[in-house]
Amino acid sequence: MSKCHNLSNQCLIDKAQNEKIDLVWDRYEKMLPLCGFGEKGICCRICMKGPCRIDPFGNGPQEGICGANADTIVARNLVRMMAAGAASHASHGKEIAKTLLNVGRQTAKNYSIKDPEKLKAIAKNINIDIEGKDIHQIAREVAYESLMDYSRFEEDTCTWLTNTITKSRLEKLEGLGVALNNIESSVADIMSRTHLGTDADPINLLLAGMKTSLGDYTGMQISTHLSDVLFGTPEPVISTANLGVIKKDAVNIAVHGHNPLLSEIIVDVVDELNHEAIAAGATAGINIVGVCCTGNEVLLRRGIPMASNYLSQELTILTGALEAMVVDVQCIMPSLSKIASCYHTKMFTTMPEAKIPGATHLELHDEHALENARDIVRQSIEAFKRRDESKILIPEEKSNIIAGFSTESIVNLLSKIDSEKPLRPIIDNIVNGNIRGVVLFAGCNNVKVTQDYNFVHMAKKLLENNILILATGCGAGAFAKNSLMNSEATKEYAGESLKAVLTLLGKEAGLDVPLPPILHMGSCVDNSRGVDLAVALANELGVDLNQLPLVASAPEVMSEKAIAIGTWVTGLGVPVHIGLMPPVEGSPLVANVLTEGLKDVVDGYFIVEGDPLTAADKLTQVIEEKRAALNIPSAVKEEK
Amino acid sequence: MSKCHNLSNQCLIDKAQNEKIDLVWDRYEKMLPLCGFGEKGICCRICMKGPCRIDPFGNGPQEGICGANADTIVARNLVRMMAAGAASHASHGKEIAKTLLNVGRQTAKNYSIKDPEKLKAIAKNINIDIEGKDIHQIAREVAYESLMDYSRFEEDTCTWLTNTITKSRLEKLEGLGVALNNIESSVADIMSRTHLGTDADPINLLLAGMKTSLGDYTGMQISTHLSDVLFGTPEPVISTANLGVIKKDAVNIAVHGHNPLLSEIIVDVVDELNHEAIAAGATAGINIVGVCCTGNEVLLRRGIPMASNYLSQELTILTGALEAMVVDVQCIMPSLSKIASCYHTKMFTTMPEAKIPGATHLELHDEHALENARDIVRQSIEAFKRRDESKILIPEEKSNIIAGFSTESIVNLLSKIDSEKPLRPIIDNIVNGNIRGVVLFAGCNNVKVTQDYNFVHMAKKLLENNILILATGCGAGAFAKNSLMNSEATKEYAGESLKAVLTLLGKEAGLDVPLPPILHMGSCVDNSRGVDLAVALANELGVDLNQLPLVASAPEVMSEKAIAIGTWVTGLGVPVHIGLMPPVEGSPLVANVLTEGLKDVVDGYFIVEGDPLTAADKLTQVIEEKRAALNIPSAVKEEK
Repeated sequence: MSKCHNLSNQCLIDKAQNEKIDLVWDRYEKMLPLCGFGEKGICCRICMKGPCRIDPFGNGPQEGICGANADTIVARNLVRMMAAGAASHASHGKEIAKTLLNVGRQTAKNYSIKDPEKLKAIAKNINIDIEGKDIHQIAREVAYESLMDYSRFEEDTCTWLTNTITKSRLEKLEGLGVALNNIESSVADIMSRTHLGTDADPINLLLAGMKTSLGDYTGMQISTHLSDVLFGTPEPVISTANLGVIKKDAVNIAVHGHNPLLSEIIVDVVDELNHEAIAAGATAGINIVGVCCTGNEVLLRRGIPMASNYLSQELTILTGALEAMVVDVQCIMPSLSKIASCYHTKMFTTMPEAKIPGATHLELHDEHALENARDIVRQSIEAFKRRDESKILIPEEKSNIIAGFSTESIVNLLSKIDSEKPLRPIIDNIVNGNIRGVVLFAGCNNVKVTQDYNFVHMAKKLLENNILILATGCGAGAFAKNSLMNSEATKEYAGESLKAVLTLLGKEAGLDVPLPPILHMGSCVDNSRGVDLAVALANELGVDLNQLPLVASAPEVMSEKAIAIGTWVTGLGVPVHIGLMPPVEGSPLVANVLTEGLKDVVDGYFIVEGDPLTAADKLTQVIEEKRAALNIPSAVKEEK
Repeated sequence: MSKCHNLSNQCLIDKAQNEKIDLVWDRYEKMLPLCGFGEKGICCRICMKGPCRIDPFGNGPQEGICGANADTIVARNLVRMMAAGAASHASHGKEIAKTLLNVGRQTAKNYSIKDPEKLKAIAKNINIDIEGKDIHQIAREVAYESLMDYSRFEEDTCTWLTNTITKSRLEKLEGLGVALNNIESSVADIMSRTHLGTDADPINLLLAGMKTSLGDYTGMQISTHLSDVLFGTPEPVISTANLGVIKKDAVNIAVHGHNPLLSEIIVDVVDELNHEAIAAGATAGINIVGVCCTGNEVLLRRGIPMASNYLSQELTILTGALEAMVVDVQCIMPSLSKIASCYHTKMFTTMPEAKIPGATHLELHDEHALENARDIVRQSIEAFKRRDESKILIPEEKSNIIAGFSTESIVNLLSKIDSEKPLRPIIDNIVNGNIRGVVLFAGCNNVKVTQDYNFVHMAKKLLENNILILATGCGAGAFAKNSLMNSEATKEYAGESLKAVLTLLGKEAGLDVPLPPILHMGSCVDNSRGVDLAVALANELGVDLNQLPLVASAPEVMSEKAIAIGTWVTGLGVPVHIGLMPPVEGSPLVANVLTEGLKDVVDGYFIVEGDPLTAADKLTQVIEEKRAALNIPSAVKEEK
């Protein structure tokens, strides 16, 4: 197994080996064999009587010391993962909402309302009357109403859940008691009920897990849309991706993590300091590059090139040409600071809740954001002077990409074709079968899979089957790096009817080139954009989400956030493919609920399939079944 | 090692063995050897790249796959334990606060304000003006202000933290940034920052752990005091403890868990249904007995006898004379339903967040509380008829106890001596050295220790050293069962000067017998009562909490709640003894912070000592050092 699907990056993996620097793949190999109890979810460390573990072969203990069996232990561990995911997206959304509140109060020094129309549209959508109110008041009211989703103690459903899904779906979720009233309460509820000796019922636990996962969804909606208000709603943008975006003759600064509050400010100060970089000998000036979802945020809104998604993040430093790695929160390998110390690279942490030993901590919260951003850039320029030329190795490969497909930008684009009903061209082509269906790719990289391999191979097969692809997060990163997000990819990989549609749509929308076959919708919090589009389509078609020929896939799933996302997607009625088994095999009951039982409750369910081509076949089959149920033409049937 | 310090209970352990029923001790033995990675805190299951584990001997991996080292992994695991503890107490307090709100709104069917004076005192303490307001409005305002501690998004410190500790302590905690604004936010923050790739700094993590642990404290304060409003503030009460409280000729119903919302209603319906039990042949009628902290709640307020603390909870069913085990939340062994199925015992779960497979679920939330409580009692009476006489074995041993020492009841008692300054008799006797100091015993049982052994042996030694003991939770249960909470114990175990004080105080307070040497302050949420007393003493003496000759001890620590409690006690400046090492040994850095580094930050710190007599010596020494620092007479010095 090669480590990385981008073979051009292999030179850096070899370089690390020569320099005796351990990378994520090396640490994985040294960790083998992995603990089977943990992998199967049957290790319990919830109290100090243990740790306990269930013997999966039935010879040893079948109960923990307290009497909890495998079902209880697996379910508790799993829902704690969901809670951690929900908490992460909750925190992200809350930071953004508090910033918007301060902007509304006119106390924020470094942030402003970049998209007032979107703010008004949100206000309308969440039932805030904007008549006669100035934009700051609207900002305050929208922020306050959003923060209520973190504060409410009465039993009303969260505002951002209520107003962003189909009516029938909301009724179903409320009927099940999983339509939460407060995101943070749902997280605390999971931690409370999984405490020793509280909830022992795996089904009850999984329902609570669904509830907190819908909190993850709610936090995402807030993150995406309030970020658009503060930083602008993405529009199609041309950029490049892969390690080749790092420039030999520039001061290269990577922004990494998830929260645009940081990266936007860094990008803001580049222009004013560019001359200092040039004066220091960097003829190409300052070059900001993105890593992970902070990378996606600034790619979509500012056209910043994308250097890497999750698994290859360490390689950015191995190029020897990265002056600074500036990180905010989530998915930042702690190894980065150690690797940076082998180079001239400065490592900066910027958020109070995410420090890393060995990094310089400069907070980018509003008050000192601008000064600290300038400080970071100037220290990067200083670092440039300390470069060791002999250590520089930048892979040449980079891909051209078109990104920036927010729901609004898709609607804008299509409204050039049908201004009355902009979604009709998509719907018509789904109904007539030119587009068989849609797969939303999301989620992480996982070291257990060759990086990006599953994404790329599944996507090519699905495109060939005339299935349109949406992508976010590290999935979008994988496609961006591997030349699947440009017009050439449409020509090369899309099936005939899909190619024709994308070519026509591109032409009619005035782009003169085919739309890319995979639409980059943003960072992993922007899975909310995928839902928005699906809800718009469902409402237009007069069906619920579960009836759409729509499937989600996280073929290299890894983080707790991904577990939460996958769960709420099933809760919205959409089948979810995952390429690796989560830690549930120790409980056939829990595994069965996730892959089968869920169908009867929320319509969505998990499909676990490690082989990307088989997975593509399975998802195609699901899509064709959904089409058949909707009584719209089935390619499979037609071929018969 | 015997399993249980109460040798009279051994007969039931033997009975279980004969009946081939596994008890907690059997499951522990079958689980041996325990996983060393988990025990040392160096197993990480936070993402799906692993699980990872650090080699504690330095030969294998020193970093997880992401690069997190032992310090990060240990700290992340530990603070997640604190968050689970805080969430548990948060949930408990929130249920009570919401009930009080409904009482204030006059929409609660089955609850009322039993202690209006306490409600007014609380209102005054948290700065609510009560002038001209009726009791329901005060209830609404107090409940609302309490619920704000779960809802606030501005940065102001929680109301119940601000107003219950010393001013200097509050300033210190605020200065450290650990005085939280919202309990559930602090829990979500922990889950967010411990997500893969966020906080990797062990010190930053531990500070956040302190913050959420102070959330645990805040939740406890709300639980204790609003429960007093709804159910009455405990006053000294005489009762009995140990398995001998189960009556052969009664319908025996155990109430188990933590939340008095359940047990109070059960106790309420006993009188009206007693005749039905008698008619069914139970000549002694209905006999409610308590287990764990629900047991403590009804013991303190209703005089209900205490059958068992945590570790021996299964034995209540083994008596063959328990008709029903009615549980709410926390510390309920899932094994109970399986063991109940071997007997005629009915097992009932009553809270939506705590179901157990095999149990009957009848919710005791307000709306149907009374009907369901009656249903539970009637089903218990039916179960009585199905008793198998041949399976009955009730140990005879039970202890007489005096319980009910809320801070208010202690003050009331002492005000008979000095109505102006009721705490003076205690303070004078501490200053003159008759009482050398105070130890607050709390926390769990742990199967790794002979049940109650550490509690009993430490207490006897400390009493001999003229140290007064306060106790809550399973610690109080241990002392209650082992005859250490009555006047005879004062005569038998208290040192000469302590005995003289307790005898005099008992006499002057009009009890005519010595006060017990160990004061039962309530359930484990009632550690807040211990703080209230300590704060009152500190304020009276004009010192901060860390200067008092006061130490806390959890010699059989086991649950995540106990980890959270221990942490906030150190945060309040008080040294905390624990009898077992938490899962931190894999990081000498984290272990050192807890036992040493914390001193410089918050004054409090952990003392880990497994041997109870050595632990008693160490705590005595700490108390003498505190006395010396306060410049009040030292027994050690005087003896020289």
